Parts: sequence; C-alpha cells; structure tokens
Amino acid sequence: MAKIFFGQIIHTKSLSDFEIFTSGFIAVDHRGKIVGVGDESDYSSWLSEHTDFKAAVAERLTKDQFLMPGFVDCHIHAPQVAQIGLGLDMTLIDWLNTYTFPLEAKYDDEQFAAKVYTKVVENTIKSGTTLASYYGTNSKDSTVILAKEALRQGQRALVGKVCSNQNSPNFYIESTEKAISDTEEFVKDIQNLKTDLVKPTITPRFALSCSKELMDKLGEIARNNDLHIQSHISENLSEIDFVKALYKSSYAEAYDNSGLLTSKTIMAHAVHLDDEEIALFQKRGTSVAHCPASNTMLSSGFCDVLRIIKQGVKVGLGTDVSGGNSMSIQDAILRALDVSHHLEFVKKQDIKGCGRSSIQDQHYRPLNYKEAIYLATLGGAEALALSNITGNFVAGKDFDALVIDTTNYPLHNFYIVDDNKPQDLQLLELIQKFIYVGDDRNILRVYVAGKQIK
Amino acid sequence: MAKIFFGQIIHTKSLSDFEIFTSGFIAVDHRGKIVGVGDESDYSSWLSEHTDFKAAVAERLTKDQFLMPGFVDCHIHAPQVAQIGLGLDMTLIDWLNTYTFPLEAKYDDEQFAAKVYTKVVENTIKSGTTLASYYGTNSKDSTVILAKEALRQGQRALVGKVCSNQNSPNFYIESTEKAISDTEEFVKDIQNLKTDLVKPTITPRFALSCSKELMDKLGEIARNNDLHIQSHISENLSEIDFVKALYKSSYAEAYDNSGLLTSKTIMAHAVHLDDEEIALFQKRGTSVAHCPASNTMLSSGFCDVLRIIKQGVKVGLGTDVSGGNSMSIQDAILRALDVSHHLEFVKKQDIKGCGRSSIQDQHYRPLNYKEAIYLATLGGAEALALSNITGNFVAGKDFDALVIDTTNYPLHNFYIVDDNKPQDLQLLELIQKFIYVGDDRNILRVYVAGKQIK
Ligand SMILES: [Zn+2]
Ligand SMILES: [Zn+2]
Repeated sequence: MAKIFFGQIIHTKSLSDFEIFTSGFIAVDHRGKIVGVGDESDYSSWLSEHTDFKAAVAERLTKDQFLMPGFVDCHIHAPQVAQIGLGLDMTLIDWLNTYTFPLEAKYDDEQFAAKVYTKVVENTIKSGTTLASYYGTNSKDSTVILAKEALRQGQRALVGKVCSNQNSPNFYIESTEKAISDTEEFVKDIQNLKTDLVKPTITPRFALSCSKELMDKLGEIARNNDLHIQSHISENLSEIDFVKALYKSSYAEAYDNSGLLTSKTIMAHAVHLDDEEIALFQKRGTSVAHCPASNTMLSSGFCDVLRIIKQGVKVGLGTDVSGGNSMSIQDAILRALDVSHHLEFVKKQDIKGCGRSSIQDQHYRPLNYKEAIYLATLGGAEALALSNITGNFVAGKDFDALVIDTTNYPLHNFYIVDDNKPQDLQLLELIQKFIYVGDDRNILRVYVAGKQIK
Repeated sequence: MAKIFFGQIIHTKSLSDFEIFTSGFIAVDHRGKIVGVGDESDYSSWLSEHTDFKAAVAERLTKDQFLMPGFVDCHIHAPQVAQIGLGLDMTLIDWLNTYTFPLEAKYDDEQFAAKVYTKVVENTIKSGTTLASYYGTNSKDSTVILAKEALRQGQRALVGKVCSNQNSPNFYIESTEKAISDTEEFVKDIQNLKTDLVKPTITPRFALSCSKELMDKLGEIARNNDLHIQSHISENLSEIDFVKALYKSSYAEAYDNSGLLTSKTIMAHAVHLDDEEIALFQKRGTSVAHCPASNTMLSSGFCDVLRIIKQGVKVGLGTDVSGGNSMSIQDAILRALDVSHHLEFVKKQDIKGCGRSSIQDQHYRPLNYKEAIYLATLGGAEALALSNITGNFVAGKDFDALVIDTTNYPLHNFYIVDDNKPQDLQLLELIQKFIYVGDDRNILRVYVAGKQIK
C-alpha cells in the first residue's frame, strides 16, 4: 500500500551535500519505491501530478522525530557476533587463532548457525542496519542459512561464503576444489532465492589464506557472473609483510592480478595502503570499508579515510564485528570521527611524549558528523555498488529508512526546543543528539524497500 | 539490615592488581559497610568469627552476573547534561560561547535547575556512577539543589559552585566578592546537610576565568576548611597560551601559586602538561581527571595517561559532559582505551599520510581493559581523595557496587559458557563482554553505602 511520510527528513547527496527538510514529505509506492521527495509546501502540486497517491496512508512524524536513510554496514562477520567483545586485548593474528578460527569452525553445526544468525540479523536491524555486507564462514550451508535469515527478516544483504585454502588452522581450511565448488553452489543457491534483497558476494578471506590458484578462480567466477566481491586488505603490518613476501607484489596487486579488484569490490581496512595502491583502487573503481573500531581494538593502525577519499576512492563504514566491538553503524560513525580527530592531532600538534610527526598538515580538518552520516548511508551504498537502489531518498530508489525518535532514553528533550530558534538549527541539533548520544533505543522504526522490519 | 552477596566478584587493588573471585562472598553490615570479602570456600570459617551475620539476608548472583565496584566519574558538568551532544563540531572557545555559557546562565532559574538536575542524577546512577565530582554553575542556590538531589537519590558526590569573575561573557560573570561570599555560603549549606555522601568542592572554573585575587581566596577557603578542589588544566593549546600570558607562569604554577594544588585537588584534562608540571602535581599529591571523549570531540589533543601515571600522579576517568558525549564511565573506559591504542600508533608506526613522530617508543603498550577498570573505580576514588571509603571491596569501606547482568540486551549469552572452559576465563570473558559491548541495560542494580539506588 502506498504511503506518505510528513515531517523532518534528512539525507545526503554526496560527502559535502547534506540535505534537510524541516517540513518534508516522502511518497512511497506499494512496491516500496520512492516516488516523490520534497518540501511539504510543494506537496499539493506534487499530488496533483500523482493522483494515485490521494488514497495513500499518511504518517506524520512528531517534532522530536526525523526520517533518515538506513545504515549501511559495509563489513561485518556474522559468525563472530557470537564472540563480540572477547579477546580485544590481542592483536590480529593471536585473536584469529585464539578466538575467531575455532568459533567459525563451529558453524558446520547448522543448528548453531541458525541460532546465532537469527540474532545477528535481529540485532543489526535493531541498530538500524538496512544493508549489510556479511562474511559467513567456510561452511556453504550455514552461510546459506544466514542469507535466508536476512531475507526472512527483510534486511538487504550481500552475503559471502568465505574461502581459505592455506595458512589456516587444520580444523578450519578447505581444499582448493571444495572452496571453488562450494562457492559456485553458494552463488546458485542464493540466486535461486529469487530476491532483489539478498545477493551473493565472492569472499576470499584475505590474500594470505588463499592460494593464487584459488584467487584466480574466484576472480573468474565473479567476472563470469558479474558478482560483488569483498575481502580484507592492509590491516596489520605483519600481515602486510607476509602477503608481500608470498605474492611478491603489493597487497593491492595480489588481488588485482587475480581480477579481484573491480567496481563491485569492497576491501575492508586499507589502513596502510600506499599511494600507488590507492591509485589502483581508483582506477578499478574498487571501494574501501573503513572499520575504525577494529583498527583500534586490534592495534592495527589509523586509516586516514580523507586521504583515500581525496584520491577518488569510494568509502563506506563497517562495524567489522567482532574485531569491532559494536554491531551499530551509529557507533562506527563516532569511532570514525574519533580517528579523524586523532589524525588531526598527529598532523598538527606537538604531542606530549611523542613529539611531531614528520608530515605536518595545518590545513587538515577532521570529518564532521554530516560527512560521517554520508559515509554511513549513501557512501556505503556507493561503496557496495548498490547506490542505484538505496542510500538516500531519491525518486526511483527503494525506501530504506529509519525513524529516529529523540525522546527515548538515553536521549532527553532538554535540547531546548525554542520557538525563537530557527527550525533548521533545531533539526540539526536533533541529528547531533542522536548521532553523539543516542543508541538503538532511539531507532523507533526501520524500513527496507518500504516494509517496516523493526 | 546486613546482607551477604555470593557469586562472581571483581575489583582492583592497584593499576596492575586486578582481583577476581569466581565464587566469592561480600558481607555488608546494616550501615552499608563491607565487613568481609573472600572466596566462598572460606565463608563458613569467616562466619564463625562473625556470628552476627548468621541472620543476614543472602543474595546469590546468577552465573551470568558479577559484582564490581561502582563507577567514579571524576569530572562532569551537571548543567551541561541539558545540551549533551550539541556543538561537538566546534573547538573549546567557540563551544563555550555558543552553547555552554548561555546554557549555564539559565540555571539562575531554580525550577529549570531542579528539573535538569533530577535527570542528571537519575541518569548517571542508571549508568552506574556511584561517585561523581560535579561542576554546578555560578549560581550557588541551583548548585545546592544539585547537591540535595544527589543526596536524595543516594549518590555519592563532590559538588562545586563554579567561580568565574573575568574573561567571561557579561551575562555569566560574578564579582570577586560575590564569588567568594557565595562559595563560603555554599560550603556551609552543604556541610549543613550533615551527610557523608555529599561534600562541597572548591571550583574555580579555570585559571583564565578567575583573577589571581579570587584564586588566592579560593585557595585560602579550601585550606581553612580542608576542602576538595577541582578545576581544569591544559586542555586546549590556545587556552594554555592565554593562561601563560595572563599569569606569567606555567599553567600548573598559576594554580599552585594560589595554594590550589593539594592532595585533595583534581584537575581535568592535563592534555598538554609539561614534565615539570607533572612533577609539581606529583609533589603536591594532585590528581588528574582523564576525559578522553571531550579531549577528542573538542579537538583538544591526546592525553597520554600512562606518561602521567608513570610520574607518580593519580589518575581517574571523567565523562566531562557535555564536552564529552556520554554520561557513562563505561563509555569513558572505551574512549580511554581508544586514545591509548592510538598513542601506540603514534609511538610505533609510520602512519600513512603523517609519517613518524619524532619520539618513537617501541616498548609502549596501551592500557588494557583491567587497567581501565581500575581507573574507572579505585583510581577515580584515589584521584578524588576518597579511596579510604570507596573504590573497591575492602573491609571497612562502604559498599558502592554494581550488579552486572550479561544477559540483557545489547549482550547475549553466545559467549559459549562452556564447562570445559576454566571458570576464571569465563568470568574474564563476561567482564570483557560488559566493558566492550554492554551499556546501562546491563547494569542491573547500583548500590551506594549498601543502599540499592537502581
Ligand atoms: Zn573483517
Ligand atoms: Zn570540564
């Protein structure tokens, strides 16, 4: 059934173009597609050209609510939600061996998989994630369960069966043949779901755990089927050394030589990428999933996303659970702001106990919350090559949206709604309240393709 | 009525001494004082020596719960809770002028003060703060309301009427005489409450906004009445330049010359303190309130707390609402870990786009979650010169405690409670779950001096 929302609306059109409607409308048709967006003052003239909306259900938000695009999580390991918060005093390789690999191996048990994945999708929806790029595990069947669960709960998702045939523990490794045949079957299984919501994504765990032969073959499967691709790159310094020694090339070339850097590829982390590697990403149209929480927790390093964006590479945000400690992209926004502020200190200040860094940049200014909201919504959709259907409120796209309520705990309406204050400033303050102080309790409703899923 | 808690218990004895009881007991007498703490296996012998506890109420925690000391917030501006989350894209001085000063001036309205302060105390208790060092405003009467509200709700608090007689907007400034006489009355008003829970604390806003004459007099009042003292130091680079020019001394000396650096003084921020200033703090027994969230949000800088601790200075954590964006000390723990991890990158890595800092330190290791819990509990109590009565579970101290439940959202019991896993590892994992992923929903009960206040 067609629906029209009236009230405060925000979204982004690019990194620097943040649009607000203090009294706006969004018209959504029965298929869940956006048909019209604008100021309420233009609504009656819009309606005269869209008479089929005269019978639409109208919903008016309160002055404490606003509508925004759903969050896009560009990088999350669904199986690792079971261990979220554990082992974050370790670095990458220790954490993988102690916690992650043994846990992921458990997903051969489909009952365990079903139990965890139900909660993963429930909780990411609760946190406002309308589109997630999920890693599953090596287990094809349990990863199909994850895809079906996203579909059942109405979440948009890219889902990948993970591949790893080398440099992995003997209890969690596949043969090259099995990795390939399971991937091919996985792609068919997901395509057989006959849905626009959930798509398969080719997922080499990372260059270290895949042989060149496997990488080549995965590149071929992606190319032949025009598939999305996701992997990790340049997270941890020792990992990078290992990859370079193994592939006798840069980390980015290791993927590119197998045809894995495409305009539908997203690579998580990119902390220590060289300028040449970033240029290669730009040339291929490959994107970066910025995962600030896990880069910090696992002592990987600073990812300077503005440096990457400036070189023309698309960037979205990832929670990277469970290297990251939160399933919420709103939290990822805050962590991205932290990293960006901290890089400002490094670029400008004489830091007590550390001194000055060798490359100073007094012109640097950190990300602001509006830019971070772009990364968390449209930027993520662009990075996942899905901005033709989601990411902001544009006629023709699906209605993937959140209704934010700023009266629920932990927020309060102390923010001095003042009749003397301009309406647009009041709205900007509501947004700040939610981003800086809010949590899942302030995400009142979640819509994907027009359907309410929270 | 006397009470005995049985179950998993954690607390700290120092920065490096984290103690856990997988099956422990804590006995609390009718006055709310801890009488015994130990392993449950020692309980019956303990009881034979404390026969008056035979009639005590026993409470047994579940295997998903543990008991820990309450959180200590060493620095929070109660009036600013009304604007939490707003203006965090500004730097210190802009933010003070645009948001903070106009808001604080509103607290001349006692009804407004009562309304906000009720919520402030409710919400900090909800977040597990059993002891807070509160800034009020220049208004003596509204700050007394804050103190009474903490007392009414049973929270332990240091409360300060703020003083500022220069370099302040004309709508929010006091004469020297008024600042002094109101401070003297404020101290009497609080002492007349005849409570151990709430104490007055001398509160020059910061050296910039107080004349030397006012600072001298405040030092004198503190000395004559053996009072706690709180203020700000070395937060922002331009603020520091201004103070140095004004006082023709270091920032620390500006306070010390007025007798304001004592063993009952806590100074917030200390981001850019020189080694000489830290040495002066150590000599005076003065403490630091580390406020990582606001240091980041207001673009102030990195505070390297391990550098300060290493020089023998006591450190606790502060939320610094609303320069900080969270009322929760659990959040402050996470932000302190972030800063400490990020300093590791600065000290060890060649950061892409920034290069290496001039002082490298390959031996640096960041704070871990156990040390951060110390800072958030006993460290804070020591920093506030109140560790004789609170901060950890030691016979003779008051029972200020939290019951943490790891089954409530956002946590889940996926953490694989496994009978094959050692009990102490299970408990450490529960703690990690709470610290890294939990929120106020996991703080089931809050006790101050034995009385349940949440
Ligand atoms: Zn990952
Ligand atoms: Zn402060």
